[in-house]
Amino acid sequence: MKKLINGTDDVVAEALQGMEQAHPELKINHELKVIVRGDAPVQGKVGVISGGGSGHEPMHGGFVGRGMLDAACPGEVFTSPTPDQMLEATKAVDGGAGVLHIVKNYTGDVLNFEMAAELAQADGIDVASVVIDDDVAVQDSSFTAGRRGVGATVLAEKICGAAAEAGKDLATVTELCERVNAQGRSMGMALTSCTVPAAGKPTFELGDDEMEIGIGIHGEPGRERRPVTTAAEVAKQLVDPILADLPYERGEKALVFVNSMGGTPLIELYILYNEVVKLLAEHGIEIARNLVGPYITSLEMQGASVTLLKLDDEMTGYWDAAVETPALRWGA
Amino acid sequence: MKKLINGTDDVVAEALQGMEQAHPELKINHELKVIVRGDAPVQGKVGVISGGGSGHEPMHGGFVGRGMLDAACPGEVFTSPTPDQMLEATKAVDGGAGVLHIVKNYTGDVLNFEMAAELAQADGIDVASVVIDDDVAVQDSSFTAGRRGVGATVLAEKICGAAAEAGKDLATVTELCERVNAQGRSMGMALTSCTVPAAGKPTFELGDDEMEIGIGIHGEPGRERRPVTTAAEVAKQLVDPILADLPYERGEKALVFVNSMGGTPLIELYILYNEVVKLLAEHGIEIARNLVGPYITSLEMQGASVTLLKLDDEMTGYWDAAVETPALRWGA
Repeated sequence: MKKLINGTDDVVAEALQGMEQAHPELKINHELKVIVRGDAPVQGKVGVISGGGSGHEPMHGGFVGRGMLDAACPGEVFTSPTPDQMLEATKAVDGGAGVLHIVKNYTGDVLNFEMAAELAQADGIDVASVVIDDDVAVQDSSFTAGRRGVGATVLAEKICGAAAEAGKDLATVTELCERVNAQGRSMGMALTSCTVPAAGKPTFELGDDEMEIGIGIHGEPGRERRPVTTAAEVAKQLVDPILADLPYERGEKALVFVNSMGGTPLIELYILYNEVVKLLAEHGIEIARNLVGPYITSLEMQGASVTLLKLDDEMTGYWDAAVETPALRWGA
Repeated sequence: MKKLINGTDDVVAEALQGMEQAHPELKINHELKVIVRGDAPVQGKVGVISGGGSGHEPMHGGFVGRGMLDAACPGEVFTSPTPDQMLEATKAVDGGAGVLHIVKNYTGDVLNFEMAAELAQADGIDVASVVIDDDVAVQDSSFTAGRRGVGATVLAEKICGAAAEAGKDLATVTELCERVNAQGRSMGMALTSCTVPAAGKPTFELGDDEMEIGIGIHGEPGRERRPVTTAAEVAKQLVDPILADLPYERGEKALVFVNSMGGTPLIELYILYNEVVKLLAEHGIEIARNLVGPYITSLEMQGASVTLLKLDDEMTGYWDAAVETPALRWGA
């Protein structure tokens, strides 16, 4: 196993130390492993938090800051965080207007967030939860009952974070998050596996000429293994199932998110994005916004995913709103 | 070879098409392969351009925009751009105040930028050039007479771009660029090779337990191959040669740039950054600014580099100034 780490047990703890050094504007609770926006809790503002296993950086910790998440709790690599962490994050961002939990649909995440929400509510904090399940690849999976939560999570965190920043109440931010999930669809693929540090060997094996279509962000099996093919064909194999699952009328607007699984470099992502653009043009879909880069990764896995979000004006406005986090920054 | 591409001959052209789709604020000349800031030429402003082989994305095209580069010319993968491209970029950004060429020290880049500068000057454009050669690993290299230009290039582009945006004249921006180069030092390492699309096989071979210390961004040989070791030891093997080459007095300030070669994920970069912070603390060096991420890459190569820039107040101010490019964005 070739990785820039020290002990395999220290990966998350030490990455958090590095993150604290690199981003002194964040507050990091090292004991419970919670990353909190520096000025939290913001009085009167809905808190928005997320969390999940590590190994998907910059998600979620890199999205903590003004206009996006108020806190994130990273579990060990590919392992759900504990209810303790989630409760601490909830308390740390509670400004009296309630807290939204954005939860990716993996069994451990869902159960632990449910427990944390109950504990927080017992402490008098108003908590709402939205489970993101945008991955069209498979109905159930090794870590999931129902669809997995993947790329739409990033979009939900940005859009709901902006709505909370704008002063919207918990019910409004929650409804918006449900809408992003309802209108977001994703599909991913892998050219190579990744290696979880504690395991020390690749999560799965792929032949030299094979790729896995419909891969999960933890290397969970997808739909099938196929021969490696062109970017144009890969784009089609990702976009077609998305549009089959949530059809678009001609002229409808989409946010298109082309994401690297970690090891696929930007030059290839732009080639893939170009192919996605051509396919969507054939369907008459207007690409109103885009995001291209490594935002929800799977350690060093080579591969990519495509997320389409059917946009309305409200979502577009919140997407454009200012954001100031380690991984996404724009606006004044 | 597993890559998200179509034909190996079309990699750069198609990536530029994708980039144009993703970033409509940029103007892209597809015939000559030049990426230009949308509002160029800015009258009365010094133009700042760079260029070099592709495969190092986001460098340089991802740094085109307000407060950084006015244009970039990408060559084929790991291949110098032509004088034609550089001349076109120079003309496209000439606002009457002259143009600075920021050139990484590789033989082809240097020769072609020299020729482009002569041609531009014959057309009445005032051109200055600064050659970046910050890599302390080796004195000469397969592509270089003298030291290679690596991470300091990113910092020079940001700092000089900000100075040009602030209205400084060509002599001032040029002197600043020379100063960044004089005060910047880098060293890199690789855990794995990368594969140039046109070659179809890895540039070099590394054993399962080997890493290469002092690697170049095209896979050029470094100082030596050593057994894979901890992030702490890797940090020391990168930082010690940098400080031996340009010593710091206690209390001096540095910008610390920890860069992924492409395939190394962010979670590992933060671990490495944390180790670099500890080492610099032992030397009494104050980390005034930092940058952690994949900014000057080598396709999908796993590995990292460290760049230290000895900061003065002027550089710090230009570093902090607003920037609005695909890959670096901050400020108003």
